[in-house]
Order: sequence, then C-alpha cells, then structure tokens
Amino acid sequence: MPLYRQTFPRPLKTVAILAPGLIGGSLALALARGGEWKIHVWAREETSLRKAKMLLQPLKASLQFEEVIPGAKVIVLCSPVSAMGRLARKIQPFLDVDAVVTDVGSIKVFVMRELVPILGDRFLGGHPMAGSEQSGLEAARWDLFLQAPCILTPLSPVHHPTVVSHLEKVRNLWTSAGARIFEMTPEQHDTAVAFVSHLPHVAAVALVSTVCSQPLSLQEIAGGGYRDATRVAQGSADLWLDVLLENREAILAALCHYDNQLQTLSHLLKMSDTDGLYNFLEKASVARSLLKN
Amino acid sequence: MPLYRQTFPRPLKTVAILAPGLIGGSLALALARGGEWKIHVWAREETSLRKAKMLLQPLKASLQFEEVIPGAKVIVLCSPVSAMGRLARKIQPFLDVDAVVTDVGSIKVFVMRELVPILGDRFLGGHPMAGSEQSGLEAARWDLFLQAPCILTPLSPVHHPTVVSHLEKVRNLWTSAGARIFEMTPEQHDTAVAFVSHLPHVAAVALVSTVCSQPLSLQEIAGGGYRDATRVAQGSADLWLDVLLENREAILAALCHYDNQLQTLSHLLKMSDTDGLYNFLEKASVARSLLKN
Repeated sequence: MPLYRQTFPRPLKTVAILAPGLIGGSLALALARGGEWKIHVWAREETSLRKAKMLLQPLKASLQFEEVIPGAKVIVLCSPVSAMGRLARKIQPFLDVDAVVTDVGSIKVFVMRELVPILGDRFLGGHPMAGSEQSGLEAARWDLFLQAPCILTPLSPVHHPTVVSHLEKVRNLWTSAGARIFEMTPEQHDTAVAFVSHLPHVAAVALVSTVCSQPLSLQEIAGGGYRDATRVAQGSADLWLDVLLENREAILAALCHYDNQLQTLSHLLKMSDTDGLYNFLEKASVARSLLKN
Repeated sequence: MPLYRQTFPRPLKTVAILAPGLIGGSLALALARGGEWKIHVWAREETSLRKAKMLLQPLKASLQFEEVIPGAKVIVLCSPVSAMGRLARKIQPFLDVDAVVTDVGSIKVFVMRELVPILGDRFLGGHPMAGSEQSGLEAARWDLFLQAPCILTPLSPVHHPTVVSHLEKVRNLWTSAGARIFEMTPEQHDTAVAFVSHLPHVAAVALVSTVCSQPLSLQEIAGGGYRDATRVAQGSADLWLDVLLENREAILAALCHYDNQLQTLSHLLKMSDTDGLYNFLEKASVARSLLKN
C-alpha cells in the first residue's frame, strides 16, 4: 500500500445500494467497515427501509430514488433479476454523468439483455460468488465476501475510456469488500456458474428429494456428509426459480455432463472395477483438496 | 438422573479401542471427558501407538492384545472393515466372558457376515454417523459425536439376556460420547446409509469430477455452495473404496432413485414448467430445513 494513503486519506466515494437483502446488506456492512465508502440505501417498502436503517446505518436511506442516486458513483442493484429492468428505468433519470450501475444477479446474459438497452455502457454486470441458504437483511455479515470470487462481465472489448473507468470503480468496490475479481463475458459467466453454482444446487435438491421420498424418515439418521452436501437445497425456491429458468440451457448442458459422470461411477460399481473406482475417487479427492475449505 | 449418582459415583467401566483413527480417537476423547470410562488403546504399529499415547492419554496403550483386552467390557474395532475379521480372530482368546465387541464400520451386512462366525453373539455392529473429510488420529475431536446419530445393528430379535446386556453396554458407551442411538437390522442399516451417506458421497464425487473435467479451472470461481456440496468428496479413496464395493447393490439402487429425481428436474427445466419446478424446489427446501445445520 503506497505511503501517501496513510498521510492523505482519499476522499470517500459514494455507493447506492438498492433493495439490499443478504448480498446488498453484507456489501454495505463490509464497505462501512473499510471506511472508504459513503453508503446510500434505497428500499422498496417502509418495513425494509426501517430494517436497513437499523442494521446498516447508512449515511442516507430513502424510498425515493432522487434522494439516494444523485452523488453516487456506483449504484448496485440487489433486487431479484426479474425486477432489475423496472428498477433501471426508474433510476435512469437521476444518475450522475460518471455513475456506473452494477448488479449482483446470478445470471448475466439475461440481465445484460434487459439492462443494456436502458443504461447502455453505464451498466456493468457483477456477481459475487457468495451466499448462504439463508436470505434477507437479517442474515447479512460483513465478512461474507472475504476471499470470495466476484465475477464482472463487461461487454468486451473494454477499450473506451468511460468503460475502463466504470470497470475500475466496480472492481474497486468489490475489492474494498474483500472479494477476488474475475472478468469474463456474460456468456462465459452463465456457462461457468451453471457448473459451479446451479448444478450443485440442482444436485442437492435432487438428493434431498431422493432421501425424503423414501418410506422411512432417513434424514433423522443422516450425518455431516448429507448435511453438507444438501445445505444449498434449503435456499429460497423463489430466488432459485428465476435463476434456473433463465439459465436453463447452460444448466441442462451441465446436467448432461453430471449424468455422464454418474453413469461412469455406476458402471464401475456394477462391474466391481476396483482400480477404476479407486482412480475415480482418488482423482476427485485430490481435485477437491485444491480448494480451500 | 437419580440422586444416588451424585453421592455414590458408579465404578468406572473399561473400554478397549482398537486401531483408533478419527472415529476411535474422537470416541476416546469424548469418553475421557465424560469421566465414566477407563480407556485402553491398541495400535498396530509403534508410530500409531506413540501418537495415541500422546493425543489420547489412555490408561493403557499397547501393541499387544493381551495387555488391553482383558478387563475391558466393551471392545471397539476401528480398523477398516476389510481388516476386522483378522482383528476379531486375534482378540478372541483374550476376551472376558461378559465382554462385548462392537465396531464403527460404515457397512453392517459385510461386517456381521465376517464377525459373527468368529465372535457369535458377543459381536454387536455399530455405526456412528459422524466423520469428516479428514481422517487420522490428528483430526480427532471430543465433540464429534455430540447429537450425532449412532446406529446399532443387533441380530433381531433381542431376547436373550446376554444379548440384552451387550446391547445395553454398547448403548451406554455411545450415549456417554453424546450420540443419539438408533437400532435396526444390518440389512436396514445398509439400505439406509446407501441413501444418506454413500449416495451423497458418490453424488459429490461426480460433481467434482464434472466441474474439474471442464476446460477452464472452474473451481477457482466457486463459492460456498459448491464448497459445501462437494466437501465429502475429499474423503480418503482407500476408505471409501471398500465401503462402496461392499454395499454396491444398495448404492446402485439409491443411484437409480437419484437418477429419477434428476431426470424429473431436467424435464421440468426443459419444459420451462414454472409451477412444477417451483413445487420441486420448495418441497426440497422445506424438507431440508427440518434438519438442523
């Protein structure tokens, strides 16, 4: 860190977080802790606004866009993806000329398709790869993004100075929250998360469904393995429905790959192929151990 | 708890734990903490014995069966299931007349088939449903079994007074370690764990294998969902190989059920069946939420 930051603290930047739940709330807490950002919050309803004021203690909080959007250099949309188009249209008149709008939605092709026609290159997609089976502002934690990957999806190529500066601002925001930044196209993002996020969700849902459709109440005797493997299945059906439907092509492709692996494992078991099975298990064990717990 | 226990503490009981790793070590730590059991430990090699002495501080520890088996009322076999027959034959001459032998293996039909011919009704199968992707004595924790299910598999029906007394001793052991006891036949056990333990393992291994066989290093951008869903896949290939092969019929049956659920989910996705998909997700989410985290 350069020395001048210690003697001449940089002026605070302003972020407006719209419709904060688990993700937006955790972002606000992380940024407040870092001390480099002024935080504005918009909520759709009085109850949520009251909760946000109490839990996040933002500099400004309002139900009116004109009170929190002007002055903000980064605006973060945290609503469900299906509501983002509506939100973008409403904030558009109040945006500063150099403001960038980003989001936290789990799919990017759909979001870009909805928002770029409204906001042009002032929109830059984002997706922090962190979450929990819990949702809502009450579950927000300042450390949710520490070391978590955050994917940004600029429409390539990034040459125009305005886009470069937008990207820099959003990078800066997530780095302040502790995340590690990755960049890819919206299409690459949707394919990647079909594998590392949507497929694990579908696999966990199918696992719970398999176990709970047996005549005995098998969950009672389940240990930590089942508990870990199925934790994500507890996530909100409302939130996941949108995501799965909008990214269904990529998820169906990932499910095909998953099915192939399961078929291979079944076959090795059926044949009692000791070496084949051992190699399969060992390869997965080594690969998984490269990931930090 | 009856009052007399406070004024006249019961005499200590003795348990011999054979070849302790994660499970046996955690059992020793839990029992030592409870203060109701004297602990003997047998290890196969000098290195393991030294480690066991240091980490578990048992009353007695030896490489010789004759030094730790006599006097013990419960003997717990913690070796891999494939080595249990050998172990049973070796300890048999040293067993007290009222001693009961139990184990911690993840499959029970195989174990009973191996051990009952050697030990008769002095053997009673057991399986604590706790573990970790780690293994070995270094990973042992006194609280591993707190609230964990422990399945005992007496050969039904349990009428003979000797068997009743054996069952009581083993129940007592695991209750002292904090576990919740379930009883079922070895066959019921193997079917049940095929669903709640072996299937989640196979599903997680296939998930890692799917993600890691893609051209990009997708694990780098994975968040907590993937991490949780695949944690068990990191388990030792050696230990799991035995278990999967010996319980392969039940696992293949469970895999069939799992495949059906995945096919149903795929179909709902393909059809963009909003209501069907929502119901599927919601049902799994509610079912999973009945399990404590």
